[in-house]
Amino acid sequence: MAKNLDITVYLDFYGEMLTDKQREYLDYYYNDDLSLSEIAANIPFGEKGRSRQAVRDVIKRAEGQLIDMENKLGLVKRFEQVHTGLDEIIECAEIINKSNLNFGLSREINDAVIKIKAIAGSLSE
Amino acid sequence: MAKNLDITVYLDFYGEMLTDKQREYLDYYYNDDLSLSEIAANIPFGEKGRSRQAVRDVIKRAEGQLIDMENKLGLVKRFEQVHTGLDEIIECAEIINKSNLNFGLSREINDAVIKIKAIAGSLSE
Repeated sequence: MAKNLDITVYLDFYGEMLTDKQREYLDYYYNDDLSLSEIAANIPFGEKGRSRQAVRDVIKRAEGQLIDMENKLGLVKRFEQVHTGLDEIIECAEIINKSNLNFGLSREINDAVIKIKAIAGSLSE
Repeated sequence: MAKNLDITVYLDFYGEMLTDKQREYLDYYYNDDLSLSEIAANIPFGEKGRSRQAVRDVIKRAEGQLIDMENKLGLVKRFEQVHTGLDEIIECAEIINKSNLNFGLSREINDAVIKIKAIAGSLSE
């Protein structure tokens, strides 16, 4: 089973729509990079789904739900566009800053550039 | 039953997670501003749920799902923060523009301001 690296991002956006168990297994698998067998071995005795195959089923189904949500809602894609735009805005702010330092030295422009970079930076987090 | 105006925004973000029927009723109710009785009267004979009460139940349940999604995922709130930030960036760009026109007349600053406004504007749509 190939690890799908988009899943980590989808999990961050849509994870709250999954069950605790789904989130826990995906977290082990993607964020802690455990194998299916290692995850199965981590599950307490007496709980359902201790086999490698059972863990795989839970993960596969949860991945399917996350991918389905992104296909329907596209919010990760929308946020990625916002991030790209914010990076471009920061680049423009740098250009203004350099030009202002070299030729203008306007305090007003300086302050506005600092503010743009702060806002764009905080929205990118 | 009071109309909850947030629902229109939630519908825009999360509507694809609802069934066609739920989306259709919410669309009638919120976007076309029909009453429950009017929506019930619009449903073809022979279809389930032709009573005012049945329409109300579908809408109430769908609203609950949308509110639950926003409570869990908070993506509307996140996008609203982005919009506020982009508006502030545009204001800063205006300040830079005015200062540049009055005191500097740097072509480079002018071009960068235009680009910032274009990017922030397109991301706000």
